[in-house]
Amino acid sequence: MSQVKFPLPEDRIPTAWYNIQSDLPEAAAPARHPATHEPLGPDDLAPLFPMALIMQEVSREPWIEIPDEVRDAYRQWRPTPLYRARQLEKALDTPARIYYKYEGVSPTGSHKPNTAVPQVYYNKAEGITRLTTETGAGQWGSSLAMAGALMGVDVQVYMVKVSYDLKPYRRGMMEAFGASVIPSPSEHTEAGRAILAEHPDSPGSLGIAISEAVEAAVQDPGAHYALGSVLNHVMLHQSVIGLEALEQMDLAGDYPDVIVGATGGGSNFAGLTVPFIGRALRGEQDVRVVAVEPAACPSLTKGTFAYDYGDTAHLTPLLKMHTLGSTFVPPSIHAGGLRYHGMSPLVSHLHATGVIEATNYNQIETFTAGIQFAEAEGIIPAPEANHAVVGAIREALRAKEEGAPRTILFNLCGHGHFDMQSYLDFMAGKLHAYEYPQSEIAMALAGLPGVTG
Amino acid sequence: MSQVKFPLPEDRIPTAWYNIQSDLPEAAAPARHPATHEPLGPDDLAPLFPMALIMQEVSREPWIEIPDEVRDAYRQWRPTPLYRARQLEKALDTPARIYYKYEGVSPTGSHKPNTAVPQVYYNKAEGITRLTTETGAGQWGSSLAMAGALMGVDVQVYMVKVSYDLKPYRRGMMEAFGASVIPSPSEHTEAGRAILAEHPDSPGSLGIAISEAVEAAVQDPGAHYALGSVLNHVMLHQSVIGLEALEQMDLAGDYPDVIVGATGGGSNFAGLTVPFIGRALRGEQDVRVVAVEPAACPSLTKGTFAYDYGDTAHLTPLLKMHTLGSTFVPPSIHAGGLRYHGMSPLVSHLHATGVIEATNYNQIETFTAGIQFAEAEGIIPAPEANHAVVGAIREALRAKEEGAPRTILFNLCGHGHFDMQSYLDFMAGKLHAYEYPQSEIAMALAGLPGVTG
Repeated sequence: MSQVKFPLPEDRIPTAWYNIQSDLPEAAAPARHPATHEPLGPDDLAPLFPMALIMQEVSREPWIEIPDEVRDAYRQWRPTPLYRARQLEKALDTPARIYYKYEGVSPTGSHKPNTAVPQVYYNKAEGITRLTTETGAGQWGSSLAMAGALMGVDVQVYMVKVSYDLKPYRRGMMEAFGASVIPSPSEHTEAGRAILAEHPDSPGSLGIAISEAVEAAVQDPGAHYALGSVLNHVMLHQSVIGLEALEQMDLAGDYPDVIVGATGGGSNFAGLTVPFIGRALRGEQDVRVVAVEPAACPSLTKGTFAYDYGDTAHLTPLLKMHTLGSTFVPPSIHAGGLRYHGMSPLVSHLHATGVIEATNYNQIETFTAGIQFAEAEGIIPAPEANHAVVGAIREALRAKEEGAPRTILFNLCGHGHFDMQSYLDFMAGKLHAYEYPQSEIAMALAGLPGVTG
Repeated sequence: MSQVKFPLPEDRIPTAWYNIQSDLPEAAAPARHPATHEPLGPDDLAPLFPMALIMQEVSREPWIEIPDEVRDAYRQWRPTPLYRARQLEKALDTPARIYYKYEGVSPTGSHKPNTAVPQVYYNKAEGITRLTTETGAGQWGSSLAMAGALMGVDVQVYMVKVSYDLKPYRRGMMEAFGASVIPSPSEHTEAGRAILAEHPDSPGSLGIAISEAVEAAVQDPGAHYALGSVLNHVMLHQSVIGLEALEQMDLAGDYPDVIVGATGGGSNFAGLTVPFIGRALRGEQDVRVVAVEPAACPSLTKGTFAYDYGDTAHLTPLLKMHTLGSTFVPPSIHAGGLRYHGMSPLVSHLHATGVIEATNYNQIETFTAGIQFAEAEGIIPAPEANHAVVGAIREALRAKEEGAPRTILFNLCGHGHFDMQSYLDFMAGKLHAYEYPQSEIAMALAGLPGVTG
C-alpha cells in the first residue's frame, strides 16, 4: 500500500473566508419576509442572528477576515488532510487520479464545526448566552454543542424524535458537551404543541424541529437561533475546506478537472467547491463541478427552483432555492444529514445558472461505494459522504471507459463511526433503495407559496 | 478559548522504533513454554508469529528500523497532534501545565493501528495470507481488520460474545473492512466447544477468545495469530507515540515532570512513556511515570508479579507479569480495552523494579473526569482514555494544593465515538463503581501455575 497525503502546516489555515457572492455575475435572489414577501432587511433577521452573521449573509465582499479566536479554535483539527486515493484508483483500474479532502478528523467527525465555532463566537460577542438549533442525524447538533462548551454558551437542540429514540449516541455526545436535547415535536413550543395535538405519535421532521428552534429563540431575549447549512454565512465559513484544498492540490502539482460533493443543505459541497468555482467564474481556470444527492430526496435534480419556506410551520424567511416543497417528508434514508426538502440558495443559484451539474444515486449505490472505499483506503465514510464517494467512483470509471486520464477531487465530509447500524443493515441486505418518491414530491410542490421574484 | 497545538511535519514520523529493552539495567524475565516451563526459543513461537516479530520480541537493540511501507501507511494519520490543555487547566484553576498526545485521529479512532499495520506487514512479507485474533471492545479487532484490508490479508476475529451481541458497531466496522467476526466461545475450535459443552450460555471472555484465536492459527499452515497488546513487539511499535511526543514537548519548550497513561495490557501506556523512561534510565532526564488502571481490574496495584498464562485454556506461553490470575473474569466495566487479567511483561518489569508507579480509579471517577475533559477541550475520550484523564487531573489538583507548578503529559489514546452508550449510562446514574473484587481475585491468584524464574 502507498499512502499519499498532502499535509499543510498550521500557519496555512486560511486567514479569511472566501465569499462566492463576490464572483457571481448575477446576484442570487434575496430572502423574503414570510408574511409580507418583501426582500428582508438586516433588522428582520436580528431576532435570530447576530448582526455580524447577518452582514455576512448579504455581503458581496470577496474576503471576510476570520477572527483570531476562531482561527485559534480551528487549529484543533485544521488544516485537514488531502489524500490521493491511490489504492482506490488501483481497485478501479482507472487512469484517473482521485484526491479527497477529509473533514472527519474534527472532534465531532465532520465538517460541521467549521461553522459551529464562528457562529457561537459571533453570538457570544453580541452578548448572547443561549443558542437554539435543530438536528436530524446529529452531526450539526453535536458540533454546535461542542462549540458551545468550548466558549461557554448554552446550547438547546431540538432533535427529530425518531432520531432521538433510535439514534441515542449523537444525543449522548451533545449531552456530554453539556447541551440540552429535546425530542421534537415537543410541548415546549406552540409549533410543537400544534403538531402533537393533531399527531400525538408524530416521529418529527427536520422542518418541524426548525420551527420549534426558531420559535424558542424568538421568545427568549438572551437567545438566538443557529443553522448548520443552507444559509449564505454557513457556505462562507465552510470555504476553509476548499481554500486549503486549493493549496494542497498545488502541493500535489495537480488541479481537478472535476470536483464532486454530496448535497443535502449544501454546506460541505459549497465548502469544498466555491474557491474553485470562483476561479472558474473569474476566468482563471475551468472546472466541472458535480453535486450528488440522494435519489430519495432529489431537490436539485427533481425539485423546483422557487421561493419556499425552510420549515414546516412557515416561520422562516422565504428562500429562493431548489425545493421539494416544505411539506415533503423524505423517506428514512440513512444519510440523515441529506434529508432536507430545500437547498442552499447559493448552491441553487449556481445550478440554475448552469455553473454546476447535479445527479443522484440511491442508497444501495452509495453504501456499495462506501464499502469499496473503506476497503481500499481504510476510512469508513459517513452515509452522507458516500454520495460524494459514489460520484467520484463513477467519474473514475467513465475515465476508464473513455481511456482518458483526469483529476477528480471529492469531499469526504465525515466518518461513519456513528453510522455503523446503517452499514450493518446494508451488509445484511436490509436497505431499501428508496428511489424518487414522485407522487409525494408532486403533492408537496403543489403547495408552494407561489412567490415570484 | 485558546487552542494550543504542537504539530509535527510529516517528515518527522519516526524512522525507527525505540526498544526499551536496550536500556533496562536488568533484562525482563523470558517467556516460558506452557508445558515444559523452559525459556522459549524463536522456533517455539514460529507457528504463531513471523520471524521478524519474534526477533523484535527478544531484541535488545535500541533502535529497530521502521520499514518504508509501514512508515508510508503511518502517514495516513501520523504524526498525531500534541495539545496543551489550556481550557482544562483553567477549569481546574491549577498552576500545572497539562499536555496530551491524541491518538484518536487514526482511521479506527485509537492507537491500535500503530501496531496492526506492522504486524500485517511482517506477516504478509513471510507469505501469510490469513491472521486470527481476538477482540473485546473491538478497538484492536477493527484496527487489524483495517490493516488487513489495506494490505490484502484476510482477518478472522474472535469477538467476546457479550460484546458481539451488545456492541454491534465495532463488529460492523470490522465487517465493513472485510474481516470475518465470530462470537466467542464458538463451535469453530476445541477450546470453544469445551467451554460451550460446560456453559452453553457462556458470555465469553478475552481469555477464552485468545485461546480460540491461537488454536485457529496453529491449525492453519497459512495463518498466524496477532495480539494487540501485552507482547514486547507491540510495545516497540507503539513507541512512535512517545518519540513524536518527545519532539513535540521540545517544540513546546517544555518537558514533563510526570507522565500518565491508562493501562490494560500496557500498549498505549508504554507507547507514550518508554522513550521518556529510556532517557531517565540513561541518566539524561528524570521523569515520574504513573500507570492508571481500573479499580475493577487492578493488575499492577493488586495483582501478583508471577508467571501466568495469557489465556483461559492455557495455550499461550507463560509470561512473567502482574496478573490477577488467568481465571479471573473482570466485572463488566465500560473500558473493555482494560479488562485483562495480565499486564505487559515489560510494563510489569518497570513497575517491579520501581521505575514506574501505578494507581487505580473506579469508573465513576473516570467518567466524571471524561465529561470534564470533553466540556473543556471538545474531545470525548474513550472510556479507556478516561483513566489517563483522571490521573492527569488528580496530578494537576495536587499541584494546586501544593501551590507548585509542574508539567503533566498524558496519552489520550482514543475517542469515545463508539462508546456513547457508556456515557449515556453514566449520565443517567446507571454505572456501578465496581471497586476491587477482592475475593474473586484471591481465588484466581490461588490457581497460578507456580512457575518461578
